Amino acid sequence: MKVGVVGASGYVGGELLRLLVSHPETEVSTVTSRQRAGEYVHRVHPSLKGFIDLTFSPMDIEKLVNSCDLVFTAVPHGKANTVVKELYARGIRIIDLSADFRLRNPKDYVKWYGWEHPFPELLAKSAYGVPELHREEIRRSQLVSCPGCMAVTSLLAIKPLVENKVIETNRIVVDSKIGSSGAGAQANAGTHHAMRYGVIRPYKPAKHRHTGEIEQELSLVAKKDIKISLSPHAVNIVRGILTTNHTFMDRSVSEVDLWKMFRSSYKNEPFIRFIRDKKGLYKFPDPKFVIGSNLCDIGFDIDEDNQRIVALSASDNLMKGAAGSAIQNMNVMFQYDEKDGLNYTPVTPV
Amino acid sequence: MKVGVVGASGYVGGELLRLLVSHPETEVSTVTSRQRAGEYVHRVHPSLKGFIDLTFSPMDIEKLVNSCDLVFTAVPHGKANTVVKELYARGIRIIDLSADFRLRNPKDYVKWYGWEHPFPELLAKSAYGVPELHREEIRRSQLVSCPGCMAVTSLLAIKPLVENKVIETNRIVVDSKIGSSGAGAQANAGTHHAMRYGVIRPYKPAKHRHTGEIEQELSLVAKKDIKISLSPHAVNIVRGILTTNHTFMDRSVSEVDLWKMFRSSYKNEPFIRFIRDKKGLYKFPDPKFVIGSNLCDIGFDIDEDNQRIVALSASDNLMKGAAGSAIQNMNVMFQYDEKDGLNYTPVTPV
Amino acid sequence: MKVGVVGASGYVGGELLRLLVSHPETEVSTVTSRQRAGEYVHRVHPSLKGFIDLTFSPMDIEKLVNSCDLVFTAVPHGKANTVVKELYARGIRIIDLSADFRLRNPKDYVKWYGWEHPFPELLAKSAYGVPELHREEIRRSQLVSCPGCMAVTSLLAIKPLVENKVIETNRIVVDSKIGSSGAGAQANAGTHHAMRYGVIRPYKPAKHRHTGEIEQELSLVAKKDIKISLSPHAVNIVRGILTTNHTFMDRSVSEVDLWKMFRSSYKNEPFIRFIRDKKGLYKFPDPKFVIGSNLCDIGFDIDEDNQRIVALSASDNLMKGAAGSAIQNMNVMFQYDEKDGLNYTPVTPV
Amino acid sequence: MKVGVVGASGYVGGELLRLLVSHPETEVSTVTSRQRAGEYVHRVHPSLKGFIDLTFSPMDIEKLVNSCDLVFTAVPHGKANTVVKELYARGIRIIDLSADFRLRNPKDYVKWYGWEHPFPELLAKSAYGVPELHREEIRRSQLVSCPGCMAVTSLLAIKPLVENKVIETNRIVVDSKIGSSGAGAQANAGTHHAMRYGVIRPYKPAKHRHTGEIEQELSLVAKKDIKISLSPHAVNIVRGILTTNHTFMDRSVSEVDLWKMFRSSYKNEPFIRFIRDKKGLYKFPDPKFVIGSNLCDIGFDIDEDNQRIVALSASDNLMKGAAGSAIQNMNVMFQYDEKDGLNYTPVTPV
Repeated sequence: MKVGVVGASGYVGGELLRLLVSHPETEVSTVTSRQRAGEYVHRVHPSLKGFIDLTFSPMDIEKLVNSCDLVFTAVPHGKANTVVKELYARGIRIIDLSADFRLRNPKDYVKWYGWEHPFPELLAKSAYGVPELHREEIRRSQLVSCPGCMAVTSLLAIKPLVENKVIETNRIVVDSKIGSSGAGAQANAGTHHAMRYGVIRPYKPAKHRHTGEIEQELSLVAKKDIKISLSPHAVNIVRGILTTNHTFMDRSVSEVDLWKMFRSSYKNEPFIRFIRDKKGLYKFPDPKFVIGSNLCDIGFDIDEDNQRIVALSASDNLMKGAAGSAIQNMNVMFQYDEKDGLNYTPVTPV
Repeated sequence: MKVGVVGASGYVGGELLRLLVSHPETEVSTVTSRQRAGEYVHRVHPSLKGFIDLTFSPMDIEKLVNSCDLVFTAVPHGKANTVVKELYARGIRIIDLSADFRLRNPKDYVKWYGWEHPFPELLAKSAYGVPELHREEIRRSQLVSCPGCMAVTSLLAIKPLVENKVIETNRIVVDSKIGSSGAGAQANAGTHHAMRYGVIRPYKPAKHRHTGEIEQELSLVAKKDIKISLSPHAVNIVRGILTTNHTFMDRSVSEVDLWKMFRSSYKNEPFIRFIRDKKGLYKFPDPKFVIGSNLCDIGFDIDEDNQRIVALSASDNLMKGAAGSAIQNMNVMFQYDEKDGLNYTPVTPV
Repeated sequence: MKVGVVGASGYVGGELLRLLVSHPETEVSTVTSRQRAGEYVHRVHPSLKGFIDLTFSPMDIEKLVNSCDLVFTAVPHGKANTVVKELYARGIRIIDLSADFRLRNPKDYVKWYGWEHPFPELLAKSAYGVPELHREEIRRSQLVSCPGCMAVTSLLAIKPLVENKVIETNRIVVDSKIGSSGAGAQANAGTHHAMRYGVIRPYKPAKHRHTGEIEQELSLVAKKDIKISLSPHAVNIVRGILTTNHTFMDRSVSEVDLWKMFRSSYKNEPFIRFIRDKKGLYKFPDPKFVIGSNLCDIGFDIDEDNQRIVALSASDNLMKGAAGSAIQNMNVMFQYDEKDGLNYTPVTPV
Repeated sequence: MKVGVVGASGYVGGELLRLLVSHPETEVSTVTSRQRAGEYVHRVHPSLKGFIDLTFSPMDIEKLVNSCDLVFTAVPHGKANTVVKELYARGIRIIDLSADFRLRNPKDYVKWYGWEHPFPELLAKSAYGVPELHREEIRRSQLVSCPGCMAVTSLLAIKPLVENKVIETNRIVVDSKIGSSGAGAQANAGTHHAMRYGVIRPYKPAKHRHTGEIEQELSLVAKKDIKISLSPHAVNIVRGILTTNHTFMDRSVSEVDLWKMFRSSYKNEPFIRFIRDKKGLYKFPDPKFVIGSNLCDIGFDIDEDNQRIVALSASDNLMKGAAGSAIQNMNVMFQYDEKDGLNYTPVTPV
């Protein structure tokens, strides 16, 4: 199958290319970048030298339509929607990695992104690209919207608790910690190594955009409104997310019952691992042990004093949090084996 | 004044020595270490080469009593209490950096540490060494117990909220992130660089010992029982703590009123800074900007959707979180200027 | 093909398993570990959870001989030779990752390792496992000895210069920089995160063991004695090596001629990349851009003032520097495609 | 004494302010910054909040002349010379931290910096600001030029060898490793955390500008031309430099004789420490153990096989490598105690 990547000069674009060049079913036919048009891909993504010979093209809908069976769009929030709209109108299947088609309620774009969505009718056509939640819908969709990295990681940890009506739904605290690659490839004063190295930097601790996604998806699960209190933090790594989801029991449950709920929520899921060891180094999820893979590691601990369940989840923000999810969605859409081109072991230690 | 340091081969001991050699009022007369007795201090703490010429002595109460006006005890939890007891009986003033005299209720040692306190009568004599809370008591005490690093950092951020009865007192989530020096100088599989580097590792996410201290001190402030939901995480730095204190309003307050409460809680405090910038790199507290100093930086943000106040605080775990607090307590006890030997600017960038 | 891994609880063993579970031609039948016998592999190597179900066995030659077509030995220097000897005597093909069969001259073990080799007759049977140098010999050998990580990285950069008689052969300075995984999985005071993080630590700057290997192999290329001045340094990463090979011209050569020599030395080599960009981020080799892959990136710069050629090479010390080379050797020995199970793109940014 | 800092918004400027606010003899009267004029110093240097209340002024020679007894100039290479020229003409004493007055031969500016020096007559008036080499000249000078960070660190290690005619003077390889703060405060694609983190990146490995300074100063010591082969590398820390100086003996010397030479070269120097331990963690110089201090740690090892002396030196590039040297020069110029405002212990572990 021939695929194109729009906006391939960023980190998500680079990771998509990394996965696509080794995928058994895909051939990359077109990669676009406004800023780097004409340059070899490997100048921007040096790791791919020897793995891909293309140069970046300028954005060209006709060319994409003629050369691709599937297009990944990896352009910034607010800029993807026009491209997606045009490709959609031409019947092309699209996997979008921006936020532009994640939210179903047009009003949420005003609330979380500060702009009116120009194509609200398209929101209903978009599947939220988390196969663990919407596999069938993804399979049938022409347009799939990949989740935010913190959103997918967090909601996979909380979903079993909401599904089983175990927790208070207005006191869910999501404290997330994330590496620098999550902020994209554009340099600025805040990402300058001497300033970014060694930080534990709160980032929008009271109102982060991913809140909207998590609330939307968990509310669907709960069939009622769920409120999320999200606070992200930048920490001194490049790849990886940990979400610490502090929740309070609404009814008493035992550890073994909770494990049953988690296992039953994710039966046969190829990229979910459950982590809990009383000994050894890997007692709870930690992104250290998923880097380079599409895994989401999930675990929890119970604070009996406070009737608190601390649900923990870890992923690689460029994989399960972005490009890996996109490939998983592609595999679902085209009925490939869901692990095709994604069956990477984590690279450890790194 | 002549001072001794018992258990000076660890990181807290080393940091105490670093501060003491430059303090205008102190002379280090005795440093002890069971394991390193006979060795030069600078073999264990290479940074101090040229600043101190002593060798470690074995533990010797008589020698300490005869050579010191004040003794710092920096030995592990559970081992300090015997040493402190003996020194106390000889009338020596003591600043203890273990947990052995932090809790006032002997039962709390069973709950949080798993052992019966051998000298429960001494607990009432010990002042909890946070001058911002107990300055007068510290001044008068023979025995001062320095706080846990996460405990002091967190409770300084939460205290104004509890004091002003602003928040729900059973839904306080303290999510802390800490560097590797907090785990001490002893190497093990979990602190091995290749395994510890790059982690975001939950550490006792449901029941960490510092919970007891924070609950004790905030309950005193509130004059009622306060519950704390603490979850620490190890991150990829050596020094520094951030505590993210997620609290929920019990009554509505404005941002300006909150600032008034914080400012009034810490009027003229020499080591508290308030941080909130809408522009620039330093919008919220971050340990990056306090390393090497005795500062505790405090700030907050308001999540109106959830009536949540995210109170944030950052400190250097070996300074305000340990040795810096110890020196501050000494300055209070001996009526020196509270900034003596502590007026370090943070070292940035580092 | 069925393979066994002896000493599989270390980092090299873990990396071998990571590669073997995805190799199209291999099935891991036996993994041994003295210390971890009886435990699941994924307790020791958490990343492999879900990818391998075996437990570690104690060392058992009979079991290995009966269950394996090939055995990798990844036990410490000085301990491998007995195991290898026994397996060799039984006709099993062996790829050894220790230093015990790297040097051809028994006296070199006394010089560099401080012990007499117990089986000097086996040294002549061992092929030095760098396919770029000894592909045919490897193909035919029963025993292949994988190179030291710094050795292979450095000698691949210097070989074209020696081969073409371009440089002084007694003034070759190899200044290498390496991550912490190169020191193995055993924790000690020097690898403790708080002590190892942030170092630039010279390690045996005047006499490191890998010197012997580099001298042996380059002397074979030169057909005369070559002297190497090697100084390794530990730096603040986990994976990766850079070797900076400072050499002085014996005769004047142009940049273009040098490139011809390098290209002709490594024609069609699947894991050598040449790096030199006047613009962009990747001007010279840097391990950042090879992590997770089996690549060795090579480049150079010319210092005309000093008639110096700075030859640079970068590799992942656990891949091309250890387990990746082992798999490459296996592919050569068994006439698989040399890229089988090794065609990983680097994981970037990480 | 009243001092001004021109170009105070960079890292060197910030470090100067950090030191000046605690110096017993100085009061900072004026700080200038073209880009940040009007802003509070602590917005740019958050660590200094509470330690300094000034705002940045635009550049104004009159104001500086009227308000300062001494001016530090910390503006970029090529821009400092005009400012210095004007201040010099007004009789103000100046400590310049750019490269504009380091080299004595105007031709060297063409060679190493690519521009003609506009005020060559001033070069002869400038003292090279390394008190260990030029203390008396510094004391008498109106203009002192602080050394490059790699230059001062390297030449302090090599000087005793050249002085005692021990080494070949055309085969001196200086392989240096440096943290990101050395590249300044300006963000760019190469300093972006996700790209800069984890690198071992060769930077101008064949022709770096600091070569000129080292050659100049060592040639003065040797009274003949010395050639330096310098190759810097960026590594994953913020502060710190290690220089590995590979030299080859011209005549045979013993370890004990070498130590005598080093000790005699730096008798009573307040900021030189000699490092060599056969046991323990600090066997050779490592910037880890000098961070935050003005120390330069020096040591060596002897490679008998190659008659090589590996001379090693470590410093904090913002202290002894920049602002610390500047304050030390000030202390010399104004006959303060040379340790005034500089007697910081290193901050370890950090």
